[in-house]
Amino acid sequence: MIVNMASTATPDEINHVIERIRECGFQEHVIYGEERTVIGAVGNSNRRSEIEALRAAPGVADVIQIAHPFKLVSRQLRQARTIVDVRGVKVGGDELVVIAGPCSVESEDQLMETAHAVKAAGADMLRGGAYKPRTSPYDFQGLGVEALRFLKHASRETGLPIVTEVMSETDVEIVAEYADVLQVGARNMQNFSLLRKLAPVSKPILLKRGPSATVKEWLLAAEYLLSGGNANVILCERGIKTFETATRNTLDLAAVALVKELSHLPVLADPSHGTGLRSLITPMSKAAAAVGADGLLIEVHPCPERALSDGPQSLDLGGFAQLMIALGKQPRRDAKAA
Amino acid sequence: MIVNMASTATPDEINHVIERIRECGFQEHVIYGEERTVIGAVGNSNRRSEIEALRAAPGVADVIQIAHPFKLVSRQLRQARTIVDVRGVKVGGDELVVIAGPCSVESEDQLMETAHAVKAAGADMLRGGAYKPRTSPYDFQGLGVEALRFLKHASRETGLPIVTEVMSETDVEIVAEYADVLQVGARNMQNFSLLRKLAPVSKPILLKRGPSATVKEWLLAAEYLLSGGNANVILCERGIKTFETATRNTLDLAAVALVKELSHLPVLADPSHGTGLRSLITPMSKAAAAVGADGLLIEVHPCPERALSDGPQSLDLGGFAQLMIALGKQPRRDAKAA
Amino acid sequence: MIVNMASTATPDEINHVIERIRECGFQEHVIYGEERTVIGAVGNSNRRSEIEALRAAPGVADVIQIAHPFKLVSRQLRQARTIVDVRGVKVGGDELVVIAGPCSVESEDQLMETAHAVKAAGADMLRGGAYKPRTSPYDFQGLGVEALRFLKHASRETGLPIVTEVMSETDVEIVAEYADVLQVGARNMQNFSLLRKLAPVSKPILLKRGPSATVKEWLLAAEYLLSGGNANVILCERGIKTFETATRNTLDLAAVALVKELSHLPVLADPSHGTGLRSLITPMSKAAAAVGADGLLIEVHPCPERALSDGPQSLDLGGFAQLMIALGKQPRRDAKAA
Amino acid sequence: MIVNMASTATPDEINHVIERIRECGFQEHVIYGEERTVIGAVGNSNRRSEIEALRAAPGVADVIQIAHPFKLVSRQLRQARTIVDVRGVKVGGDELVVIAGPCSVESEDQLMETAHAVKAAGADMLRGGAYKPRTSPYDFQGLGVEALRFLKHASRETGLPIVTEVMSETDVEIVAEYADVLQVGARNMQNFSLLRKLAPVSKPILLKRGPSATVKEWLLAAEYLLSGGNANVILCERGIKTFETATRNTLDLAAVALVKELSHLPVLADPSHGTGLRSLITPMSKAAAAVGADGLLIEVHPCPERALSDGPQSLDLGGFAQLMIALGKQPRRDAKAA
Repeated sequence: MIVNMASTATPDEINHVIERIRECGFQEHVIYGEERTVIGAVGNSNRRSEIEALRAAPGVADVIQIAHPFKLVSRQLRQARTIVDVRGVKVGGDELVVIAGPCSVESEDQLMETAHAVKAAGADMLRGGAYKPRTSPYDFQGLGVEALRFLKHASRETGLPIVTEVMSETDVEIVAEYADVLQVGARNMQNFSLLRKLAPVSKPILLKRGPSATVKEWLLAAEYLLSGGNANVILCERGIKTFETATRNTLDLAAVALVKELSHLPVLADPSHGTGLRSLITPMSKAAAAVGADGLLIEVHPCPERALSDGPQSLDLGGFAQLMIALGKQPRRDAKAA
Repeated sequence: MIVNMASTATPDEINHVIERIRECGFQEHVIYGEERTVIGAVGNSNRRSEIEALRAAPGVADVIQIAHPFKLVSRQLRQARTIVDVRGVKVGGDELVVIAGPCSVESEDQLMETAHAVKAAGADMLRGGAYKPRTSPYDFQGLGVEALRFLKHASRETGLPIVTEVMSETDVEIVAEYADVLQVGARNMQNFSLLRKLAPVSKPILLKRGPSATVKEWLLAAEYLLSGGNANVILCERGIKTFETATRNTLDLAAVALVKELSHLPVLADPSHGTGLRSLITPMSKAAAAVGADGLLIEVHPCPERALSDGPQSLDLGGFAQLMIALGKQPRRDAKAA
Repeated sequence: MIVNMASTATPDEINHVIERIRECGFQEHVIYGEERTVIGAVGNSNRRSEIEALRAAPGVADVIQIAHPFKLVSRQLRQARTIVDVRGVKVGGDELVVIAGPCSVESEDQLMETAHAVKAAGADMLRGGAYKPRTSPYDFQGLGVEALRFLKHASRETGLPIVTEVMSETDVEIVAEYADVLQVGARNMQNFSLLRKLAPVSKPILLKRGPSATVKEWLLAAEYLLSGGNANVILCERGIKTFETATRNTLDLAAVALVKELSHLPVLADPSHGTGLRSLITPMSKAAAAVGADGLLIEVHPCPERALSDGPQSLDLGGFAQLMIALGKQPRRDAKAA
Repeated sequence: MIVNMASTATPDEINHVIERIRECGFQEHVIYGEERTVIGAVGNSNRRSEIEALRAAPGVADVIQIAHPFKLVSRQLRQARTIVDVRGVKVGGDELVVIAGPCSVESEDQLMETAHAVKAAGADMLRGGAYKPRTSPYDFQGLGVEALRFLKHASRETGLPIVTEVMSETDVEIVAEYADVLQVGARNMQNFSLLRKLAPVSKPILLKRGPSATVKEWLLAAEYLLSGGNANVILCERGIKTFETATRNTLDLAAVALVKELSHLPVLADPSHGTGLRSLITPMSKAAAAVGADGLLIEVHPCPERALSDGPQSLDLGGFAQLMIALGKQPRRDAKAA
């Protein structure tokens, strides 16, 4: 770490910082510049946060962290890419993995129709919301356990593994019982209590990027899972909040490429939430594949205009089939009923 | 609601929308313009979300919600301002309420020293984190229940009511036992499971605005609490994420004024998180008071440079006393040991 | 247009709006809803802005513009895609057009070396800054006319058309004399005086999106050029400002796809400025091609670490050749010395 | 400056950086850390930008600028606050300066009526747009020179100095002839050609912050004016672009306080553009005064609903008089017809 002293810092203030650096088990390296003094803190102490806190000390302009704050998610630690195996579907491998299904599970019929259609078109996994995080308390909140049962049934019928969101710490157990991959929604990315509950779960976690999370914050959220014992983490970029209102969010594909540089974890993109506009799903899916995303999360509904949530950003069954052709995806031969 | 048809919409597409409007229990009002057709859906049906979903129907350019989506939080429903009474401290009344204390409770001594000092300087309530939402799993995560006990003790000694954050659904009961006000942190503003757990609690809730939440999303989060039965909600603006990096966040004081127009709930401002810079706390506190905020949340630490969290945005004890003088606040005469 | 009356609007306020609508040459269509009244203004009057101004009238909650505000740039007006022909290079046609070169023209040698190399690798046009918009007045401001001469020379030697930025209204004439395409930089996107000066110029204009411009604002800036007489406008997405600091900007590829839906103008992407990071240029170039961009703007420098501007986001000559291979671009056979 | 080497940097890469640092006239200070090497470049050379360019050198992770990049605007250079004297009105002195008037000058009557009213209410200067930067080419673009003449007339009648925007380099001379203060609009903040034209002008410049400009970029834009010879610069915060759509912009009052820390220049706030909502002008004006702004820019129109621009964010004459009372402003006794 580098402590950047203010140009007005006094010798006493500089000495105080040096003392604190030593107290915390680091060695100081002082650079007296023309305008200001800069002090490096070198060493392997675990009291880094105390050096950071010196930002609050008199005469200190800034404390600059030199190293990345994440460890287990980092490619520095682990060069080999993580491949998350979901009942035979390899996320992070050579093939683009497509996860498709309705935003909300609305009925058994709606789900089964979608499941069969997306499977026929070549999807690798089925998604569907049982518990729905809705901006308004007056909107449809999901069918809960009933939806989990429908998902299980659809999985048995089609052989597709299931991805579904868990919103509540108290639902972790039940969702883990039914789902193959537990999704943490964007708005819960920094729900650290939920992350801690998910760390010991034996199923993979799909961690969506928060709508205002930096790449660093996102990777640190994943670090909660890895440091808690769950190495099977799949990241998913789903758009960030910006001033642009023509799209629902701004899908940050550079973040996908950057995370693949910084981390060994697989990264998906969600062009449905990322754009909010059906017509942009296909071009952005192709772009996500080209940028190196390991897969896609696509909302599909048999009749989007009657969807209980996210209709405008859902493809209908035919639209999804066309997307898969555009992506050059083939129906999986190996997917069998479980 | 207004359904805005695309300029290319066919008569069939227009008729389809009209049929759906009728099916959902609304009456249609069609305006045939020069360029495009616009269809109003009028009535009192509870199937509004189905009209919104028509955005996904062929030939529809957009569906525009005319009315505000929130109800119980709205001043339209309730003209009288809500005053939340916290053991005699009236939040939303005539007086500016100042809530002060350390970011994290680090030890009994640190807390007691701070509590006595902020009380002497005129603070109305004591804040302090027992459970800490930290970006990195390697940072100090709070003392938990032990900190709650220290807070209770400090409250007994000083007579100041306690505000502390609850991060986990499973901690709601214990936090409610010790705290006078339960805080929902910014990153949990849309943790709807937590909100639902808090709705039946008999203690007031302090709901911070999420770093990327619009005013509308913030008020709808409060709506979760009110519609669930908890009318004692205090809102708190704490800065939003923007491109500006000179400050930690951008404190959106216009949102404070706007929320006071839209809602009857009291609104606080948090210039510590809102700016991240100690030197800006006093000017922004004065600005918040001038804009009509009902109170302030201020981080105070006996020795900010040794704080386990948020030192750079914490005032020391003397700095807080000076702030209170700048604000014209007097020590409370009525605050007695409980 | 739709005038959305406040729920508290009085009959007088409603009547006043109706009168104004009539005065301005429109016909009113009133929808009396349960909660509020909504008034459509229908007709073909050119006094739309006066209806918009009613947002300021008593009892009015909002005025909603239904139609897109742009005309000549719109695909509604012109279905056929515009192809801008730059000395034989067709921008907006079937082939991905790559425009490459140094951020700043620093010397004749630097430019000639780059020009020959990018041509050999398959670039279609040469870019290079003669006049540089620099955040600090103390940074290198460009070689001006001398650089224009070098560019002309490089164009003669390689046959590549020249793209260079014009920053000042008073330089329009001289830049138009040397350049094949005149670039309007991102920070000048809403320099309407410059746009008006460029409208009558007979050379094509490359209009970069401003770092905080919405798609609507960007298209309206292009509308200044088209309505002023210059139909040869090439748009270029170069990243928007967001809270994310890991990349210099956030390259908004969905905007590229969206603009291709809304407008007939060709759209390029600039992954150099869009990311600020050399390692992201290749993945984001591939993504831009996949999303449907008509071309790319790439910064290339013989020795990026000695570049007078934008080194970290510049490819070196070998890196550019590799990018072209990754994109499947072949050296142009038809490009001959002029 | 600090060159932060990648953890994978080789000794050759480190040596190369050291050589470049020496070549550029700096002295290196190498800190070999546990994980990575950090190299300080110390000295007084004017080749700083070449060190920054090393970010592009192999093995370099980052180059961190330690010192602020601005000089003449900085309080480090000049402790005494700049007071800009505009025909006796002292901007940056003890009194809050209020500049009021219509967004656009629409007619002599409209302007004169406003001018007399704002003077009577206590305004210190008159604002009014002669040249209007409008998002759409089809919107009212201002009356140009005719408006300048009206402004001069209004100034003569009321004694109020005139603030008006200059949009074009070619209008600088004529605007400087009529106006007392030349305004650079937000969208032209980084129109460096315009800034350079304004630097030698003998009249004060009011420099608005760009909607996506960081504080650093804003101060560097001012640095263009000061380094070019114009020391009479007044800054004006007018709101930045964020995801929030309930207000037109987000008025960043912390930036006002921060700029007063960093710079000796006076800073105004513009709550009209900053919020876009008439009802927020008074609370945000009071907040701006409380935060330490040196003055306010307020849009006032005799009949906002008929304004040719910005009606919804304009106060009417009575509303402005009430604002002045709320601010405790008295009509100026010393303002006499010139």
